[in-house]
Amino acid sequence: MASEFDLIARYFTRTAPAGLLGVGDDCALFPVPPGEQVATSTDLLLEGRHFFPDVDPRALGHKALAVNLSDLAAMGARPIGCVLGLALPRLEEPWLAAFAEGFHALADAHGCPLIGGDTTRSAHDLAISVTVFGAVPAGQALRRDGAEAGDDIWVSGELGAADVAYRLLDGQYAANDALLAATRGALEWPQPQVALGLALRGIAHAAIDLSDGLLQDLGHILAASRLGASLDEASLPVAPAVAAMDEALRRRAVLGGGDVYQLCFTAPPAKRDAVEAAARAAQARVTRIGQTLSQAGLRVMDSQGHPLADLPAGFDHFPAS
Amino acid sequence: MASEFDLIARYFTRTAPAGLLGVGDDCALFPVPPGEQVATSTDLLLEGRHFFPDVDPRALGHKALAVNLSDLAAMGARPIGCVLGLALPRLEEPWLAAFAEGFHALADAHGCPLIGGDTTRSAHDLAISVTVFGAVPAGQALRRDGAEAGDDIWVSGELGAADVAYRLLDGQYAANDALLAATRGALEWPQPQVALGLALRGIAHAAIDLSDGLLQDLGHILAASRLGASLDEASLPVAPAVAAMDEALRRRAVLGGGDVYQLCFTAPPAKRDAVEAAARAAQARVTRIGQTLSQAGLRVMDSQGHPLADLPAGFDHFPAS
Repeated sequence: MASEFDLIARYFTRTAPAGLLGVGDDCALFPVPPGEQVATSTDLLLEGRHFFPDVDPRALGHKALAVNLSDLAAMGARPIGCVLGLALPRLEEPWLAAFAEGFHALADAHGCPLIGGDTTRSAHDLAISVTVFGAVPAGQALRRDGAEAGDDIWVSGELGAADVAYRLLDGQYAANDALLAATRGALEWPQPQVALGLALRGIAHAAIDLSDGLLQDLGHILAASRLGASLDEASLPVAPAVAAMDEALRRRAVLGGGDVYQLCFTAPPAKRDAVEAAARAAQARVTRIGQTLSQAGLRVMDSQGHPLADLPAGFDHFPAS
Repeated sequence: MASEFDLIARYFTRTAPAGLLGVGDDCALFPVPPGEQVATSTDLLLEGRHFFPDVDPRALGHKALAVNLSDLAAMGARPIGCVLGLALPRLEEPWLAAFAEGFHALADAHGCPLIGGDTTRSAHDLAISVTVFGAVPAGQALRRDGAEAGDDIWVSGELGAADVAYRLLDGQYAANDALLAATRGALEWPQPQVALGLALRGIAHAAIDLSDGLLQDLGHILAASRLGASLDEASLPVAPAVAAMDEALRRRAVLGGGDVYQLCFTAPPAKRDAVEAAARAAQARVTRIGQTLSQAGLRVMDSQGHPLADLPAGFDHFPAS
């Protein structure tokens, strides 16, 4: 289909940066600095499951790349480039232009050019696959299995807003324009913490992003590192609009809400100043929220020092109907 | 969903080979030998568009990886690993087991382990995204833009069978069990020409695979290299079952039929012996089918030395309804 190729060319083919072979050959090519490894992550996003059908296409283009850049951030990897697969139920040029604009803007901001792709028609749903590539010096990646007992547990940014925005847009919560305005950006325009991930190399023992929610993702670190942890609820950095909500809803959003592209990481107490300095250099906010323990299990202590009885499970946005 | 994670773990998590960090962290990690570049390609395959809904899942797992390995072959890149995104309308364990078996068998045969992925539910269609990574010494990749005037044009394998099998299965041709049996393997179990691509480094000037069909893909080489070409129809390696067909159908299948994971490449006449030796080393059949010309345009000469008047356009399998 000539029209399809024309559209790909118009919106997705850019001149590849020097040293990279981009869209237009069987493969894209990129160099890797000596002594560095390639870090890669892939996500497949589907309409109705990972995003609402009427989402702003500019935000969708941004987020499709952001969730993958967040995985590079969580490894402490520097972005190199990305490839995009796009299955479109319709060819709508304004939609495509806006999607590409959102995608390329974030790619440019992180030096992560689109170097290959595949566009096709789909019978029903819009599907977006993004694979990112980054580089990290051998042995310096921030893995999930590197945490040690007695580490501080830190998170970047604020928690809870994405979950609340999702439930408002999904109709689970009564319409509330002010609350939606205060939370929607966290859901639709997440900012991957790439600079923070790079700054934490050599400081953090383990890191992960919070795409599945704080308890579930911290649980992945603990399981991989064979540790437990205790969190201090009062220390959690709750998004201001969420802090005013009913306690049960707030806890569900903060502890269980996924789709959060902030980092959770552990570092030894001796590195507190180094963590703070790394965060300042990356212009990120970080908060110390608890400690890892040699004993298995994850507890969240309330302000009276009692463990919360019912911890919310990781929340699966857009469950299959 | 615990069940979903369990299934991923059961069928897609394997112990990563030494030096690679596989499924189970934010990113997979792999090393790249000094002086080599990374080659990468991505494909997004959709039910009803790239494969029939009732296709053997073992064949589907094989083909989803094969089409990507074929892109590495066409660049002369050695496979390193791959990532898989899978959107499933249902979780059917026998289907998943067979798909994984077909995928892993081809991955093992080419030393291309699955090192990362993303599995999700889809509302309607099955979607499969595969991204492969390979390595190629800097400057040695077989690109599309390296052909020179006076090069021989070669193809590997045989042509025409995949197109005929597709049209039989799609009901465009009257049912013919013998013809289907003779052609179906080319459509459903394509063998990527990885060894041939590697053997052609330093010999071929340009290469491409025939996923869009001979005329269209050779056209990509000619456009990128600013050349024309003349092909000799009588020299084309036609699959035996196709050779017996009506002339118009045969030409459509051989010249226009896509979904062919063989290589088309150019090399100078002085390298004919080297090409033959490379093919023998790779246990591949290669056939010389024409020459590149400095003058633009692509002609196919019939057995009387006259150019064919109506060349079939590249054929888009599974066009959008």
